[in-house]
Amino acid sequence: MTIEELIAIVREAAQKMQQKNFEIEQKDGYANIVTSTDVAVQEFLCQRLSEALPGCGFLCEEEDQWDTSHEYTWVIDPIDGTANFSRGMDHCCVCVGLKHLDKMEMAVVYLPWNDELFHAERGKGAYRNGAPIHVSDRPFANSLLCTALPVYHKEYADVCSQIILEAFKQCNDLRRFGSAATELCYLAMGRCELYFEYLLSPWDFSAASLILEEAGGVLSNLTATPLDYTHSSGVLAANNAENLKQLHAIVQKHTTPKA
Amino acid sequence: MTIEELIAIVREAAQKMQQKNFEIEQKDGYANIVTSTDVAVQEFLCQRLSEALPGCGFLCEEEDQWDTSHEYTWVIDPIDGTANFSRGMDHCCVCVGLKHLDKMEMAVVYLPWNDELFHAERGKGAYRNGAPIHVSDRPFANSLLCTALPVYHKEYADVCSQIILEAFKQCNDLRRFGSAATELCYLAMGRCELYFEYLLSPWDFSAASLILEEAGGVLSNLTATPLDYTHSSGVLAANNAENLKQLHAIVQKHTTPKA
Repeated sequence: MTIEELIAIVREAAQKMQQKNFEIEQKDGYANIVTSTDVAVQEFLCQRLSEALPGCGFLCEEEDQWDTSHEYTWVIDPIDGTANFSRGMDHCCVCVGLKHLDKMEMAVVYLPWNDELFHAERGKGAYRNGAPIHVSDRPFANSLLCTALPVYHKEYADVCSQIILEAFKQCNDLRRFGSAATELCYLAMGRCELYFEYLLSPWDFSAASLILEEAGGVLSNLTATPLDYTHSSGVLAANNAENLKQLHAIVQKHTTPKA
Repeated sequence: MTIEELIAIVREAAQKMQQKNFEIEQKDGYANIVTSTDVAVQEFLCQRLSEALPGCGFLCEEEDQWDTSHEYTWVIDPIDGTANFSRGMDHCCVCVGLKHLDKMEMAVVYLPWNDELFHAERGKGAYRNGAPIHVSDRPFANSLLCTALPVYHKEYADVCSQIILEAFKQCNDLRRFGSAATELCYLAMGRCELYFEYLLSPWDFSAASLILEEAGGVLSNLTATPLDYTHSSGVLAANNAENLKQLHAIVQKHTTPKA
């Protein structure tokens, strides 16, 4: 499958997001919702990708698609930023990544309401609407940090708040648009420089992480080791290794058990 | 002056924001910047509004326009969200409000990159691109809180962090788009429900506050008294009085000196 074929399938799937008549279901209280559009986008993607590249596994947010036993696995978030989508706010996107063994090989993140399509293939650079993108060279002190308090796990809110407060004092300012994949793509194109979230699912970060790496950025989990695209984990990201190290030091200070 | 005339002037001013060749000047470190576009938009607005309605005062962000000695005063932020503007991010807007004595009478907030124009006249409702808007009826527990740590006054970051953490535990989730006026307009149209910022300048909130009130929302300063459109202050806002009261109680708990 070529990246052009993947982009065409994602664009077709995202057409379902133009329809405003969707049902909202609460998966677990107010914070974790799913709409009928999330489900429809995922069904469409799984069907079309199965036909286009038979024999792959699927790791998807909705409807329990958790099969990572194959050499190739599609990692899919049909809509990242469902809360934004349900409220009519721009920052929501379709995320599709193709994993080969333990590496992401191909990725598309598409924000249909802004018509911003990000894509990358390993070793071939990252692109926004077809034009090459690159991280910024801003120093930590002039960085924007995209971050969030943990909406699905409020039990971690205190430690996250401490980390964010300390990072805020060292960087320029914070942003929270409400979609992890969007924020990682913004980092990839130089709009922001830093990213921290305490716990994400693999479909939240897998596709966008390849786009960010191909744009020159760096990512790790909270213990500064590489991301695992089949498990939930914390995510740190930055425009360069030096800034990632500074961000990691802040996280480490607040997550290491006191002696 | 009619609201239609004001809208036409604001739209014309915002055309300057389509030009991407601007100079960035740091007013006070990385956080507080001004671009040559901010200055050009303000000059245009002041000239056109002076011609259209002679004898008014001006209270503007850039270039020291601080004359509130007249019965009518234009309160202007040429670009709210200058950092977003300078980084190519959507949430930046032109804000123009007309104050009569101590009340806002007419307001326009325009996001040219999203083509979203909000307007209101006292007693005549609030509108987005010509269609009436209203706040949502979501309860506090299902609310999105738009908020920020204080980028120009990091000495208040600790108290703000405590307030935000406690509010997060009681509401649904947080957003920070990086433009106070945009966020207050989002609240006015039901995308978000709550707003807290520790210290804003009058041009950040004056125009948007009328739009929010005319959409059924409520605002106050941090001590639950009405906003003063000629001085800096903290701003609390909500979709209804009950939610504003709950937000104020959180702020009060963390800002009242301990006995």
